[in-house]
Amino acid sequence: MKKIGIVMGSDSDLPVVKKATGVLDELSIPYEVHVFSAHRTPEEAAKFASRARGEGFGVLIGVAGMAAHLAGALAARTTLPVIGVPCASGALGGVDALLSTVQMPSGIPVATVAVDGGANAGWLAAQILSLSDETLAKKIGSARKKKARAVLLKDASMQKKE
Amino acid sequence: MKKIGIVMGSDSDLPVVKKATGVLDELSIPYEVHVFSAHRTPEEAAKFASRARGEGFGVLIGVAGMAAHLAGALAARTTLPVIGVPCASGALGGVDALLSTVQMPSGIPVATVAVDGGANAGWLAAQILSLSDETLAKKIGSARKKKARAVLLKDASMQKKE
Amino acid sequence: MKKIGIVMGSDSDLPVVKKATGVLDELSIPYEVHVFSAHRTPEEAAKFASRARGEGFGVLIGVAGMAAHLAGALAARTTLPVIGVPCASGALGGVDALLSTVQMPSGIPVATVAVDGGANAGWLAAQILSLSDETLAKKIGSARKKKARAVLLKDASMQKKE
Amino acid sequence: MKKIGIVMGSDSDLPVVKKATGVLDELSIPYEVHVFSAHRTPEEAAKFASRARGEGFGVLIGVAGMAAHLAGALAARTTLPVIGVPCASGALGGVDALLSTVQMPSGIPVATVAVDGGANAGWLAAQILSLSDETLAKKIGSARKKKARAVLLKDASMQKKE
Amino acid sequence: MKKIGIVMGSDSDLPVVKKATGVLDELSIPYEVHVFSAHRTPEEAAKFASRARGEGFGVLIGVAGMAAHLAGALAARTTLPVIGVPCASGALGGVDALLSTVQMPSGIPVATVAVDGGANAGWLAAQILSLSDETLAKKIGSARKKKARAVLLKDASMQKKE
Amino acid sequence: MKKIGIVMGSDSDLPVVKKATGVLDELSIPYEVHVFSAHRTPEEAAKFASRARGEGFGVLIGVAGMAAHLAGALAARTTLPVIGVPCASGALGGVDALLSTVQMPSGIPVATVAVDGGANAGWLAAQILSLSDETLAKKIGSARKKKARAVLLKDASMQKKE
Amino acid sequence: MKKIGIVMGSDSDLPVVKKATGVLDELSIPYEVHVFSAHRTPEEAAKFASRARGEGFGVLIGVAGMAAHLAGALAARTTLPVIGVPCASGALGGVDALLSTVQMPSGIPVATVAVDGGANAGWLAAQILSLSDETLAKKIGSARKKKARAVLLKDASMQKKE
Amino acid sequence: MKKIGIVMGSDSDLPVVKKATGVLDELSIPYEVHVFSAHRTPEEAAKFASRARGEGFGVLIGVAGMAAHLAGALAARTTLPVIGVPCASGALGGVDALLSTVQMPSGIPVATVAVDGGANAGWLAAQILSLSDETLAKKIGSARKKKARAVLLKDASMQKKE
Repeated sequence: MKKIGIVMGSDSDLPVVKKATGVLDELSIPYEVHVFSAHRTPEEAAKFASRARGEGFGVLIGVAGMAAHLAGALAARTTLPVIGVPCASGALGGVDALLSTVQMPSGIPVATVAVDGGANAGWLAAQILSLSDETLAKKIGSARKKKARAVLLKDASMQKKE
Repeated sequence: MKKIGIVMGSDSDLPVVKKATGVLDELSIPYEVHVFSAHRTPEEAAKFASRARGEGFGVLIGVAGMAAHLAGALAARTTLPVIGVPCASGALGGVDALLSTVQMPSGIPVATVAVDGGANAGWLAAQILSLSDETLAKKIGSARKKKARAVLLKDASMQKKE
Repeated sequence: MKKIGIVMGSDSDLPVVKKATGVLDELSIPYEVHVFSAHRTPEEAAKFASRARGEGFGVLIGVAGMAAHLAGALAARTTLPVIGVPCASGALGGVDALLSTVQMPSGIPVATVAVDGGANAGWLAAQILSLSDETLAKKIGSARKKKARAVLLKDASMQKKE
Repeated sequence: MKKIGIVMGSDSDLPVVKKATGVLDELSIPYEVHVFSAHRTPEEAAKFASRARGEGFGVLIGVAGMAAHLAGALAARTTLPVIGVPCASGALGGVDALLSTVQMPSGIPVATVAVDGGANAGWLAAQILSLSDETLAKKIGSARKKKARAVLLKDASMQKKE
Repeated sequence: MKKIGIVMGSDSDLPVVKKATGVLDELSIPYEVHVFSAHRTPEEAAKFASRARGEGFGVLIGVAGMAAHLAGALAARTTLPVIGVPCASGALGGVDALLSTVQMPSGIPVATVAVDGGANAGWLAAQILSLSDETLAKKIGSARKKKARAVLLKDASMQKKE
Repeated sequence: MKKIGIVMGSDSDLPVVKKATGVLDELSIPYEVHVFSAHRTPEEAAKFASRARGEGFGVLIGVAGMAAHLAGALAARTTLPVIGVPCASGALGGVDALLSTVQMPSGIPVATVAVDGGANAGWLAAQILSLSDETLAKKIGSARKKKARAVLLKDASMQKKE
Repeated sequence: MKKIGIVMGSDSDLPVVKKATGVLDELSIPYEVHVFSAHRTPEEAAKFASRARGEGFGVLIGVAGMAAHLAGALAARTTLPVIGVPCASGALGGVDALLSTVQMPSGIPVATVAVDGGANAGWLAAQILSLSDETLAKKIGSARKKKARAVLLKDASMQKKE
Repeated sequence: MKKIGIVMGSDSDLPVVKKATGVLDELSIPYEVHVFSAHRTPEEAAKFASRARGEGFGVLIGVAGMAAHLAGALAARTTLPVIGVPCASGALGGVDALLSTVQMPSGIPVATVAVDGGANAGWLAAQILSLSDETLAKKIGSARKKKARAVLLKDASMQKKE
């Protein structure tokens, strides 16, 4: 199975990254986690992205806050799908990171998820891999059903309370 | 090759959809274009999404403005990757559609691209399909190089002018 | 008397729901509270809304945060009036939920109240029912007068302090 | 049948009001249209709202831009349901009117629809009246089906074109 | 000397009001503090404003949060200058109150100060009264000089520290 | 009668200034109009403000766009009331000018009116002068009544049309 | 004299670049203009920035819109001062470019000027070079005085008109 | 070596200033720290800026919150490069200060860094001085490499953990 490459711009973004790895662990999808900054270590970030397809990665995830260029910088060096997770660090609460991540120019897309939405980056990566992996597709389907049941159980318990 | 399913919420979003189909045409990726509204024809939108994997689709693209629920409504019914394109229709200039598309709850991701970013929806869909399609990956790589050359030609002509 | 159907997207929205049920309790209006997610349990949410008129509901209230599609999803399946309460959950402080709830397309309105405005959802539902219920109209009128008196008492006590 | 009372703060808001009256005409719901400003003719606005229930109105609609206090001023004087339509007049594009209309304090709700959403104010008013009017409920249901068919026709014609 | 009339929409705004009264106390300007809500006690707010000029008030100050209509409602009933203080209560952090206060229609101005800017409401009221009161003008001038000296003392102590 | 001093930061703001002078002309209030930039001619702006009280001015009005420091710069040099009119020039549509004008620090208030709200700057200045000028107060009162009648005439003509 | 290196992300940003070169021409400061995209030609942008100090550049200017990563990408590769000009291209009016340009992480600053503020990028670059160039400092001083005189002439002509 | 002049509008901004002085200390760049308010002590702020070039300063840094006019007021009085640091004080979280600092009119630039970005003000000032100081340029280069190594160490330790 292809690996997921997760890159965070700073280790302060680790809690958001853990939400993604939690999902990947649940689905037994292999991944690597890296700390590369688009601005402090631009060469390493670029090198990682440009080699990623050749090294068995299927999807890259960039996790960064403020002027969050990381996912875009990865996307500029690979034709693999790149997911961007804007983080709510800094005074402006994540709006800066959201716009810096999603408003990419034509030709270099970043698949942006919600502010601090690490879990959905994991799910989206899994759904992409599932296109050529029936077993994974079923696992994701089961996980969704489990979540739906959890909602319905909460609904049921709400009825009892009253 | 898997098909791309493009759904717009209203035919007023057609210009944004055309940007996506232009890319898919360039890459010879098969696609279907539909008009289903998350609010006016919710059953048809739901049915389309829930059958999409079985009917040979690989990626869905939802294109909508204002309280843009369409991509999310598709995502809720399939485990295929769903791309959302927020449109700048309405008085608020697309901020409403961007937030309605990207801020999805955990477990149901929408891969959001820029406001009115139809072309990038096409490119992202292609990059996803390219994971299991070497030829497509090469085509995308060539297209990128062509765009890079166009930039460099503009740079060169800028030098001459001065 | 017709019932009010309150649906929250996640049980983390319960504190906002309680503000609505507090008002309905005060006015002795019957209600049901449900947990249905527009994205995790879309069928149940749709089923609940499409049966609501036939099952004696008069008004539905959708309570959700982030890309708050819930009230809109209910509104798409019923011609009952649907009230939307955007919640301030998530990093963006409720602006996302407000725009996702209020910016509905023509033909499928959601009666949106303030961010976290559960109480006003209750009052609005009551005012709607009061159109064909003189007693309820009087109760609402009395409750308003009581609130006005509370303001005037505070004004009076302010004069004494000085 | 109860009447709808539509009040605009300035006759420059008439195009938005016409969207509402178009819907009411389609459904044969009686209405009155007034120009009362919350700030230039506050007494007339207040008088109109406080007498509205006694004079056979069932729902009031306030249409205003900028610091749009009109719907709130009506809501403060009646226990009828009041719908607010924020208008995109002025330099700030309607965000000012949206927040001024929707962020009402507890106890005095305004059922807010989209910026410039005059049509939905009409639909919402009709849905409210339909609670005690089976015929109207059916008419609204038919209108929705007509709209859904229009969407599906567009979808069908989209398939032919390709 | 003319009195200042301070009206808050809810006693939860008292801390912001105290910033204003602190300034007025420092300058020995007489004032009255009231709690009148534009929405819960609209008649009392209107009555207070319409009688204010005749009862010896020179400036009114309206202090309110969320859809802050209070200052505008006062301004609609008097030709006295009305100062508006938007409060940062509620989920949206005061942007709602700022826009609801400042974006008044032509003919009915509200002199808006900063979000939670109770002190500046006091200073502005004093500056207005000072037009016909030389002594007050001097007091304000002295207070400003005192503040300037405080800044310069801080600057001086900053030099010593280093 | 005291004069009004109107300062615009750039002569591109003249249309907004004309709205103010139109009101002052209607009320026969004397005024001077100046072009001084807080950034390009800071000394002249400062000098004008610091001499204003002594030279017979009663109220200053600062009209500027973008990082609109002008009204604040005037306010820092005088204890006269200073009114700020934020202009919607520049790409950000006036939000920048609004925040730069209204968010003044404690002790140096600017009485801010709506974006491009030149007319209300005129009305507010007049209302301030009216505190010690019965005739002017009556004129303002009459002008308001005229406006109210215009609204009511529009309301009446609306009734006829239907 | 050191050269200014101006890089635009797309030749659609040329009008903003011309505002900068106009200033540099006026001050006889040498410059080069390039078209390099942070996303389409990341290597060329990186190479240009990393060689800039050695090739006689003193200041770099990055001009870009939307998720404007260009200035930051240049800044990551050089210790020369880098000026960023956010452009108002795209649906969001430049807020996206402003936040993407200014919210840089600690250690890699971008000197950001106003949205579409090409001229100020030129002036700022000149002021930086003027630190070690007395003649240039004087030229800038003269240019400022000329602008100030232009303002004062406008002020004078305003007095005549009345 | 030329000195850096740091001016804060209020000593409550000291924590942001310390981030700047920390950087300057690390690079052994001389500096002065002042407290001058653009509004409370405008003459002192103006005097400091207009004398700065003559007194051996090379770069000025203005640190202020809310309607942050300080950096602009400094920039209006000197042709030295002026850096602005918007602070997140006040209810609006720094957006007000950011726009008030960055949206300067043509001819008077402020080099704006991130909200609360004191450290980057220090780095930017150092980079500007480094144009004519090879040793400083090397120090900045070394500091960047140290930061890059710190990122890479974190990346390495991340690999071990797994």
